[in-house]
Amino acid sequence: MLYHLFEYLKKVFEFPGDGLMQYISFRALIASMIAILTTIFIGKYIIRALQKKQIGEEIRDLGLEGQLAKKGTPTMGGIIILIAILLPTLLFCDLTNIYVILLIIATVWLGIIGFLDDYIKVFKKNKEGMPGKYKIFGQVSLGLIVGLVLCFSDQVVVHEKVTPSQEEIAQIEESTGVTYSPDHKSTKTTIPFVKENEFDYKWLAPGSGRVKDILGWIIYIVVIIFVITAVSNGTNLTDGMDGLATGVSAIVGATLGILAYLSGNIIYSDYLNIMYLPNTGEVVIFMAALIGALLGFLWYNSFPAQVFMGDTGSLALGGIIAVAAIVIRKELLIPILCGIFFVESLSVILQRGYFKYTKKKYGAGRRIFKMSPLHHHYQKEGIPALIQRPVKAIPEAKIVMRFWLVAILLAVITIVTLKIR
Amino acid sequence: MLYHLFEYLKKVFEFPGDGLMQYISFRALIASMIAILTTIFIGKYIIRALQKKQIGEEIRDLGLEGQLAKKGTPTMGGIIILIAILLPTLLFCDLTNIYVILLIIATVWLGIIGFLDDYIKVFKKNKEGMPGKYKIFGQVSLGLIVGLVLCFSDQVVVHEKVTPSQEEIAQIEESTGVTYSPDHKSTKTTIPFVKENEFDYKWLAPGSGRVKDILGWIIYIVVIIFVITAVSNGTNLTDGMDGLATGVSAIVGATLGILAYLSGNIIYSDYLNIMYLPNTGEVVIFMAALIGALLGFLWYNSFPAQVFMGDTGSLALGGIIAVAAIVIRKELLIPILCGIFFVESLSVILQRGYFKYTKKKYGAGRRIFKMSPLHHHYQKEGIPALIQRPVKAIPEAKIVMRFWLVAILLAVITIVTLKIR
Repeated sequence: MLYHLFEYLKKVFEFPGDGLMQYISFRALIASMIAILTTIFIGKYIIRALQKKQIGEEIRDLGLEGQLAKKGTPTMGGIIILIAILLPTLLFCDLTNIYVILLIIATVWLGIIGFLDDYIKVFKKNKEGMPGKYKIFGQVSLGLIVGLVLCFSDQVVVHEKVTPSQEEIAQIEESTGVTYSPDHKSTKTTIPFVKENEFDYKWLAPGSGRVKDILGWIIYIVVIIFVITAVSNGTNLTDGMDGLATGVSAIVGATLGILAYLSGNIIYSDYLNIMYLPNTGEVVIFMAALIGALLGFLWYNSFPAQVFMGDTGSLALGGIIAVAAIVIRKELLIPILCGIFFVESLSVILQRGYFKYTKKKYGAGRRIFKMSPLHHHYQKEGIPALIQRPVKAIPEAKIVMRFWLVAILLAVITIVTLKIR
Repeated sequence: MLYHLFEYLKKVFEFPGDGLMQYISFRALIASMIAILTTIFIGKYIIRALQKKQIGEEIRDLGLEGQLAKKGTPTMGGIIILIAILLPTLLFCDLTNIYVILLIIATVWLGIIGFLDDYIKVFKKNKEGMPGKYKIFGQVSLGLIVGLVLCFSDQVVVHEKVTPSQEEIAQIEESTGVTYSPDHKSTKTTIPFVKENEFDYKWLAPGSGRVKDILGWIIYIVVIIFVITAVSNGTNLTDGMDGLATGVSAIVGATLGILAYLSGNIIYSDYLNIMYLPNTGEVVIFMAALIGALLGFLWYNSFPAQVFMGDTGSLALGGIIAVAAIVIRKELLIPILCGIFFVESLSVILQRGYFKYTKKKYGAGRRIFKMSPLHHHYQKEGIPALIQRPVKAIPEAKIVMRFWLVAILLAVITIVTLKIR
């Protein structure tokens, strides 16, 4: 709202010193600072309130070292993160921007779903929480909204480089040599290693002409729904150690923020050979607020944690990451960029599948990992099925740091792959 | 050297796909990846070797929780960091660049001094290590070398914006509107909040003409020596908790890398209103290697640490940070950017000073902090002299995380201050 206030003041009074607010980089830096400070400041009070209401998560007894010490640590701390994201966003973003609106919807919508889940777990003492179908409903409905908005909003356009004809070349010789198509709607996305780094969902659609167009959009929307559901669940599974989901989300968020900045700038997007996407600059400011909120949350959430984010945090974070990746057309980079979430989810699927399969075949279930999700595998002393020798347990704080480092490596790889053709 | 190989190949064969090596951003990303992977890979072996030689640091018994668990943890791990910095630097930097040469000298020179200090501590069982005067000699001599090179090297020039006269304006009307002076040597540096963000050490010098020039350079060199000595000692004092100095140095290094990138680019430096400094782009690649090496080192050094960096690491890191800040003319931002090192040093000075003063005055020495350097203050249960009520001790891992977060906030503030005028 400060952004709009300054815009208004500029129009009416033309007062000096208002220029800073125009810069995305400046607003992003200030937004991240405000988010960090907000989290640290309100965190103390919210944690105390959560503790009073006894909102301590019931810890599954996994037989892990130091695990019982976590008993009584309040959950639902995601509330702190969500407030610290929304406050600077409302202050510094252009709130008429469709991408910002989508990100705010994702935050609030999945925040509510996650909150209800935590609420049922804590107050109804129902360890399962909300039935899975309601969670899925929340994620799918968000995906549908995002997909339809991308399909029908006039603000959502891409701005592609075109190879000019010989005639046109003669005309543009004097200019930069790069020409762009008029802004138009598209089902294209960015993918590394292929020509021009581009992939069009329409290519998957059968038929031709208008039918192919419509089928292309339907495929795109289905992909969007899948991505939001998958990432949101991935973050949820990753959230099982002090600071783990918080830190990894911050790293992923920072990378998406950089990619949004580059995509929203006509010169850089050309240099990185990704689509130029008008209006995505505002996504940078939202992501800056996200990063700040997560870093600030680590003040309390890092080992040994004084608060957990709960589903209130993890479902919303996954949703935000997915929506941000989708609106800047980088959703196909998620398996690399969100490799941690991906592998954590995969470890659960493989573990369960293998267990069921071996139970059916041999009568007794066998396991691939000492435990799933993957992070607990490293925490448990024992002999994993894959490597037939005893392995020492790694302390929780160190597992978290190493997962962060892998996340950073994956982030660098994500950016580098776009440059290599 | 790969950089030079590619340059050579390009000149001779003009083969395709060589273009990537020209990009600073690309080389920086690859350098950081190589540094992370190098550290993780060689770390294991070097730690095992250090353990075998019993290079475990004797831990001062400070009566702190979990402190004795650290006994036997090998020190001198800084070797890992230094190798992981130098390898990608040698591969991807332009080794004829004077700034890169200065940074390599700083790394090797202070690395050797630190190594000797650690060696005396560990093998000669002399807890004091190398006499302080030798350390100071190492730092001062490095400062002198850096100062003289900045003064006499032809490669070290600045490229200032100038306010054109009315006549010139008419001529440049068609261009971007910004003109630059020819490259020239200068004792100017960047400082926030003042007009044009610039400060010239020459202003402090008395006299006029040639005398003022020479005195200006002497003042500048004295400042350089002071900065290197102060930062190097600050890093050294900060290195007292698992991952503390490593993480803070990585954050400071990343910020300096960003500032170097902006300073070395004519458009961004104008936008941020900092001097355009030709040839500083290569500093970015060195800093990327530094960041990678430090992040990789956290794989082993984060809580609970399997290795300490020792003076081998901390003296060199401080030196690198100081030299990098000096060559990109941002040394006056160090009190903010390196606020953690600054405050840690200050806490030691204040504690000692107050103790001596009160001992003289009251017969018994009193303390300001429960303990110094500052990070131990938070670790100790008790009643500090400043606040007259008991304070709980904070777990080591959490103190480290909070110091990192403060370092990140300071980094953001450093960049923001440059924009606010």
